[in-house]
Formats: sequence, C-alpha cells, structure tokens
Amino acid sequence: MTAALPVAGNRFVIVGGASLVGSATAAELLDAGAAEVVLFDNFSMGSEQAIAHLRGHPRLRIVRGDALRLPDLLRAMEGCDGALLLAASMTLNMDRDPWGGLDVNIRGVQHALEAARANRLRKVVFASSNAVYGYGPNVMGELVESTPFHSVGAPPAAVLYGATKIIGEQLCRDYRRRFGLDYVVLRYSTVYGERQHNRAANALYIVETLERVRGGERPQVHGDGSETKHFVYVGDLARANRMAFEAEASDVAVNASGPRPVTTLELVRMVTRLAGSDLEPEFVGDTPGKVRLTSGGAFRIAHEEALRVIGWVPEVEMEEGLRRLIAWLDGNEAKAG
Amino acid sequence: MTAALPVAGNRFVIVGGASLVGSATAAELLDAGAAEVVLFDNFSMGSEQAIAHLRGHPRLRIVRGDALRLPDLLRAMEGCDGALLLAASMTLNMDRDPWGGLDVNIRGVQHALEAARANRLRKVVFASSNAVYGYGPNVMGELVESTPFHSVGAPPAAVLYGATKIIGEQLCRDYRRRFGLDYVVLRYSTVYGERQHNRAANALYIVETLERVRGGERPQVHGDGSETKHFVYVGDLARANRMAFEAEASDVAVNASGPRPVTTLELVRMVTRLAGSDLEPEFVGDTPGKVRLTSGGAFRIAHEEALRVIGWVPEVEMEEGLRRLIAWLDGNEAKAG
Repeated sequence: MTAALPVAGNRFVIVGGASLVGSATAAELLDAGAAEVVLFDNFSMGSEQAIAHLRGHPRLRIVRGDALRLPDLLRAMEGCDGALLLAASMTLNMDRDPWGGLDVNIRGVQHALEAARANRLRKVVFASSNAVYGYGPNVMGELVESTPFHSVGAPPAAVLYGATKIIGEQLCRDYRRRFGLDYVVLRYSTVYGERQHNRAANALYIVETLERVRGGERPQVHGDGSETKHFVYVGDLARANRMAFEAEASDVAVNASGPRPVTTLELVRMVTRLAGSDLEPEFVGDTPGKVRLTSGGAFRIAHEEALRVIGWVPEVEMEEGLRRLIAWLDGNEAKAG
Repeated sequence: MTAALPVAGNRFVIVGGASLVGSATAAELLDAGAAEVVLFDNFSMGSEQAIAHLRGHPRLRIVRGDALRLPDLLRAMEGCDGALLLAASMTLNMDRDPWGGLDVNIRGVQHALEAARANRLRKVVFASSNAVYGYGPNVMGELVESTPFHSVGAPPAAVLYGATKIIGEQLCRDYRRRFGLDYVVLRYSTVYGERQHNRAANALYIVETLERVRGGERPQVHGDGSETKHFVYVGDLARANRMAFEAEASDVAVNASGPRPVTTLELVRMVTRLAGSDLEPEFVGDTPGKVRLTSGGAFRIAHEEALRVIGWVPEVEMEEGLRRLIAWLDGNEAKAG
C-alpha cells in the first residue's frame, strides 16, 4: 500500500475550488495531466472571475454545490481519486457570521471526509493554516509544526478560526485511524497572488496599499510597522498541493510558507515601489472595528519539514510574487475599463 | 450595570443538569435561596440516579430537552436570570462519536447562548476545562490561564474535546461583545465526588482502582505512576459555580482546580487505603484501544486567579473527597443490594 497518488491520469475534486488557491491548483493539476478536475463550490465566496481562466478546459468540470449538504459532496466525489479541501470561512467572515463560519469549517470538513470515505478516495489534502499556532503577543520565533496554539490577546473570530483548523486536522487524523483514508495537512501561511480576493485579514495589507498608492494617497502602516507577516505565493501553494498528493507521505501536517517573512513596513514599501511610486508611508494607529491580527515578537513560519515530507520548497520571492499580482490587477483593470 | 447575579431570589437553568456537577450545583443554588432551578437534560448521559436526591424539591423543575434543539432551550430559559452550561461530550464520548460530540460541544453552546440572549438572561457560567491547555509531553509546570493549547502526541478525541472548549469560551466572548451577555468561564479540572459517573477518562482511575480492590484484586498503575493528575471535588466546583454568578466578574476565564495535584501512584495508594486494603499496586503497560490522557512532566493547574476574580479557593483535600465518594458508593451498593 502506497499513499502516493500520481496526478497524471487520476481524478481530483477541489472543495471550495472557485478560489485563489483552488483555481491555481486546478491549473497545476490539469497541467500535470490529471484525468479530470472537479471544482466544487457554492460560489458564495468563490467567484466566476477566479476561474475565468479555466472555463472551457476539456478536463475541468464545475459543480455548484454546498459543503453543508453531504449529498452534494457524495455525488461530486463519485469516481474521484483525490480531494483537496479548501472550503472555509476565514477570520473576517468568522467575525461577521460565527455560526456560518463554524458550520463550514467543521461540518463542511466532516462532510467532505465522509464523502471521500464513502467514495473510497485514495488521498485527501486538507488546507489548514498557521492559525493553528494562534495569535497575539506570544506568537514569536520559529513556528514549527509542534508549536502550540496561543489565544491570549486575540479577537474571538481569530481564535475561532484557528480552533476550527485544529479540529479539521484532527478529523483527518480520525478518518485515517478509523477508515484508513490517507491525508496530508498543509498549514498555509497567508496566500497572495493573481486572483487575489479580499477576504484574508493579512492579505488586505497588499491590496489596501496598492489602492491608496494608485489613488495618489500615502500608504498606511498600522502600528510601528515592525509587525511580522509571512506570506506564500499562490503558485507555490498550488505546487505544494500537487506534491502532497504525489508524495508517499500520509498522516502528517506540515507548514507551507513563503521563502521568508516580511515586516508590514517592508511590505508596504515593496508594494509602493512596485506600483511605481515613491510615496512615503504614513504611520497610523489601529482602526477600531477592524479585525487586525497582531503578533508581538518577530516570527518565521518554518517550512523545512515540508521539504522533508513532500519535497517542497517555496520558490517565489515576495517581490516577484507581488510583481505578478500587480500585473494581474493592472491587466484586469484595463479589461474592466 | 453590575455583572453580579445574586443567587437568592433568582432563577437559574442548568443545561446538562442531570450530571455530577449539575446535580451538586442545583443543590448549592437551592440552598443559597434560588427562586427556581431548572435542570435541563436529554438524559442521554445524565441519569435519574444523579438527581435522585433532588426529586420533589419544591423549587426544582426538571425539563427534558436537547441542547441541539434551540426551541427546547428557548422555552426552558424563559423567566430565568442565570444559566450554567454543562452539557458536553467528554473525550471518551468524543472518541466514540466525534460527530455527536462536536455537535453538542459547539452547536449546543451556540444554542444555549442564543437562548440566554433571547431571554435576556443576566449571566452565563460556562463549564470549560483544563483541556484548553491540551495534552501530551509539553503540558508541564504551572498551568495558568494564558498557557497555550498543546496537541502534539495527544489522541484525536482529546484534541477535539479541547478545541471545542476553546470554541465555547470564544463564543461566550463573542456574545458578550455583540450583545452584552455577561459570563464567567470556569476551567474545571477533572471532577470527582458523590454521584461520580464513568465518562471522564481521568476520573476512571478512581473507580477502577476501587472496583479492583473491592474485588480482592491488586490495583493497577499504568506506566510508572509518576504521571500527574489534578482533580477537583464536586462540592468545591458547585460552590465555584455559585460564586461565579454572584461575583462582579465578567468576560473572564479562570481555572477551577483542586488544592493540589497527585501522581497516579499516590492516587491509587490513597484509594486503596481508604477502601481498607493494603494491597500493593501492580504496574502495567498501557492498554491498547483505551484512551489514556498522558502528560509528560509534572504539572499543577494554578487556581490563584479564581481567588482574585470570584473569591474562590478549593477546600476539600483529595483524601477527604475520596472518603466521601467511597462512602456514597458503598451506600449505593448497600441500597442496590
């Protein structure tokens, strides 16, 4: 018995597929020769725009369905070999609607695992998050896979989000133990890249900075700018997802973060420069009512374990990834205009 | 506005009331002059035996209902002033039925908070657990309220249980922030005492030891006996629940643990001695298939914050509490026989 699931010639379903990571991974799997990729989404958060580049692909099938309805998933996974579980409410949505968020992030994962089991899928890749290390002043230093979950000083929605990801990971463990369903958990750091959306609290820094600079306004830095962020480029994650299917690994959880962390000040300066501006950032206080995910000390999300377990290293440096994102945003504006 | 809710003259509902802690707290609240105590339970885990001593009390009302049905809770809480939320699946049940356990521990809490909000209750006391500090070899030293959640090396059901308690606490925070519903979270350590049940993985040590010794068999110690357990006597917890209602405190989470921790070897020797036996314990390995909650280093669950916040200190030493439990068990056997 091997837990390696080659992409070429096999069928995959991406739950929450009409998304930043979903659309990039669909393209990655199709390029690698997948027999079929099923994009399963209810389009409540996923968008038609996110998958526009895939429309009409002969091996792509789009299924409108809801992860809260088990029959939808049971049917969508028929004949599939692997499933990538992306559907989730992130912190901002969890703040707006904790009931819906808990449902999607827990019941939705239960349904997806049950549908995978019932359809005898060979492997599941579950999109977890560095949110399993929590938030607040105690999150610092090297965040490795055994780092505990910190919650003191974090807003309820962020703690709820992190706790649901912990639960999702454990549900994977539980399904493997009971039913032998192989899985790899990837703990994504904040994703950015082409087809960027506006739902991730951390990724907002990029889009907000760009919008201000393009409008001729000085970019804003919240706090003193020394706060750490650790992003990962969407194309790197798509590759990580593919490699997680193809690797022998099972029953493991590894970080999938970008090459290195940045401070918010570095990030704002980088986006400003790439947007062709020399505006100086403006330091502002925290905005009341906005969910900002703050950490105290400097941290780095270690991705060395992912190399050992699935052979993956992130390749795209922040500057290059931002260049691609900005080019995509500019291209879209040009099209819209 | 005060968050203090005097017990005398007010009405209380205990969700999951037909339980070890629920029945003791009902008696505590009635003795303190509560106008009414509503014991809400679906009797799936709660038992008639647990509340036999309360039957016929003029200010006690027993309501059969299910925390998974919001209307049941909406009706049960009508006219109430305070609610104690106890209904939960613990680790052993979470292991048997993770779907049911997640439902009760998350959806059940959402329903209880929503019913409390809708009925304009003044205060909620939520029964959390030291499980929010997790399990495994990294749980050691002083466990204070800011200790993070460790999960490496723990079985899925234990991690799921702890994560649901983290979520329950955050739901309380969220309801206070949105709707002004006052609450106190008490993080119980393992409870023991009269009307002890067999559902808590840690408390099983007591009952199992007693049963073996009474049957003339040597008591068993799993591992080398140096493992730490930190119990709290049920009467002390009933008092903590009452004091949490009566205190000014709101929007806080504090530990409610017994006077001091014991090792499993100390515990087994204590129970053996109190049972009137001088049998020497037998050291055995771990039993496969049994969910054992192991920790690596010695730990102590600090309860000093509870003194500061609600004025509570545990009073009953383990030896005295065990004496009362054994007397109760013997009395019950005598009755049954």
